[in-house]
Amino acid sequence: MSKQVLIFDTTLRDGEQSPGVRLNMEQKLEIAHALRVLGVNIIEAGFPISSPGDFESVNTLAREIKGVTICGLTRAREKDIDVAAEALAPAESRRIHTGLGVSQNHLVNKLRMSKEEALAVGVAAVKHATKYTDDIEYFMEDSGRAELDYVYKVTEEVIRAGATTINVPDTTGFTFPAEYQALIKGIIENVPNSDKAVFSCHCHNDLGMATANTLAGVMGGARQVEVTINGIGERAGNTALEEVVMAMFIRKDYTGGLETSIDTTKLLPLSRMVPRGAWIQFQRCALRRDLHAILGRRGQDQRGRRPRTRTSRPIIRPRLPVQTSDNIEV
Amino acid sequence: MSKQVLIFDTTLRDGEQSPGVRLNMEQKLEIAHALRVLGVNIIEAGFPISSPGDFESVNTLAREIKGVTICGLTRAREKDIDVAAEALAPAESRRIHTGLGVSQNHLVNKLRMSKEEALAVGVAAVKHATKYTDDIEYFMEDSGRAELDYVYKVTEEVIRAGATTINVPDTTGFTFPAEYQALIKGIIENVPNSDKAVFSCHCHNDLGMATANTLAGVMGGARQVEVTINGIGERAGNTALEEVVMAMFIRKDYTGGLETSIDTTKLLPLSRMVPRGAWIQFQRCALRRDLHAILGRRGQDQRGRRPRTRTSRPIIRPRLPVQTSDNIEV
Repeated sequence: MSKQVLIFDTTLRDGEQSPGVRLNMEQKLEIAHALRVLGVNIIEAGFPISSPGDFESVNTLAREIKGVTICGLTRAREKDIDVAAEALAPAESRRIHTGLGVSQNHLVNKLRMSKEEALAVGVAAVKHATKYTDDIEYFMEDSGRAELDYVYKVTEEVIRAGATTINVPDTTGFTFPAEYQALIKGIIENVPNSDKAVFSCHCHNDLGMATANTLAGVMGGARQVEVTINGIGERAGNTALEEVVMAMFIRKDYTGGLETSIDTTKLLPLSRMVPRGAWIQFQRCALRRDLHAILGRRGQDQRGRRPRTRTSRPIIRPRLPVQTSDNIEV
Repeated sequence: MSKQVLIFDTTLRDGEQSPGVRLNMEQKLEIAHALRVLGVNIIEAGFPISSPGDFESVNTLAREIKGVTICGLTRAREKDIDVAAEALAPAESRRIHTGLGVSQNHLVNKLRMSKEEALAVGVAAVKHATKYTDDIEYFMEDSGRAELDYVYKVTEEVIRAGATTINVPDTTGFTFPAEYQALIKGIIENVPNSDKAVFSCHCHNDLGMATANTLAGVMGGARQVEVTINGIGERAGNTALEEVVMAMFIRKDYTGGLETSIDTTKLLPLSRMVPRGAWIQFQRCALRRDLHAILGRRGQDQRGRRPRTRTSRPIIRPRLPVQTSDNIEV
């Protein structure tokens, strides 16, 4: 297995969902240039169909930032993929990131599809995306709580359809490191064509373990990590690029010599460039519920609509973190 | 093994080492009252011999805060212990926290003692502390990098001398969760009288894994966690109380039903009460070195003297976190 771990930065997409963080085009360009200089491999620049601002963001970065892959997020819908492809058209190297939920909870409450229907929708989306690029990432939303056999089945089928990266999000930030490691390892071992794809960690920090979970995923065989500068992101945040990179850098003895392309001397200026938002001062899992009230529910989902759907309720109880979104929560 | 995990809060001792955090006596009292109401089991109030302010802090809390154990930190020296005992005298329930380094690095470069000498010093300190209390915690500084046989030997001897809690600090924040879990588990399994003591996790956040490491230690059999509100502490911080407590609370299924005495509804007001310091905005491992320059080296050790001793050099390299102290760095 390769020793190279790809760095997929989503500061400008998932990170920008942080309450208190709102970046204008100029700031996004500045950050994107700095990310390129830092040495990230893929920049997720936005969710093109979600708003004119996101379209512009992806399109501008695709035009301006060379030497790094630019990625756009989509739902598993033709229209989303067409719009993303349009935004990404000027890119030197482009990736379409599509997918949908795999947990029973998402299937029943959010997608209202059977497993078979959802799988067919996902496979069709990948096939549609192949019209525009051969670099296709597929996310299996809420895979941390999904049935393993279904996760294996989806992985196999979307790889066959053309997906080259498989994103295994711990959407709710719910797992412990050993669990997440076992999930990734299990997928790689049980999916017959897993050698045809790179597996990617996308962990949230609701229980304060995003960095440890991401590294555990890498120890389980993932070779891409989805991270943001300063760990910004919705709720308690995403995984901090600088923590994951430095842990791999310092503990090569433990990781078996894993490498990244990051120039660690460039981390500090970039960290200063990215606003963390006043909210991040309280980025602790226990506090989520109160914060939603305080902050007027900003930043919960990609479109800001209908928070607190049943999709996210199962882990919500009084005094527990509130997980709220009816849109993509990769 | 008990299902109860004791919460040892060191916001007012190790947390107060954060650059940018400086609490006056009134603030400390207010926080201590809130910690008692929150339900913590032990409050580490300071390091009495280190300064008149620390003495006053421990002494005032010992007098004012009832219904919770008040703890004072000492080096393994009679004078330290006498002063701590004096400060703790008014407490309803008091703990003396003493100990010294166990890694080769600490023995050679900091203590300048043989293993046998250091062990004798530690045992003598515990015996001296038994004059004042039967609640004695022993810290094995830098145990994450020490020889296991020596760690086992020290543990056995200090328990025999009267220590009732054994603190296993990951002083440099260097371990991965599986390593820290194995360390704690190994001590409990290999030390013949380990059933006579509670084992305690004390993890630093240099690689962003303090919470995951602490929880891993608990999974390995530790039944005390040393934490601070908001994870404040020197360098990249300590372990955040709220993350550890909420992870155990939410994932009882995974931890086998572990319990704490914390009232989770009281976390938010306390989080707001504790300043995080401007510095915490950059609390990332990669940034330590630059920050020392920026911040004029505040908060590196208990006394602020002679930073960057050889004790801490082995993991320092250009662009790596700088670990600096010649005093207690539990």
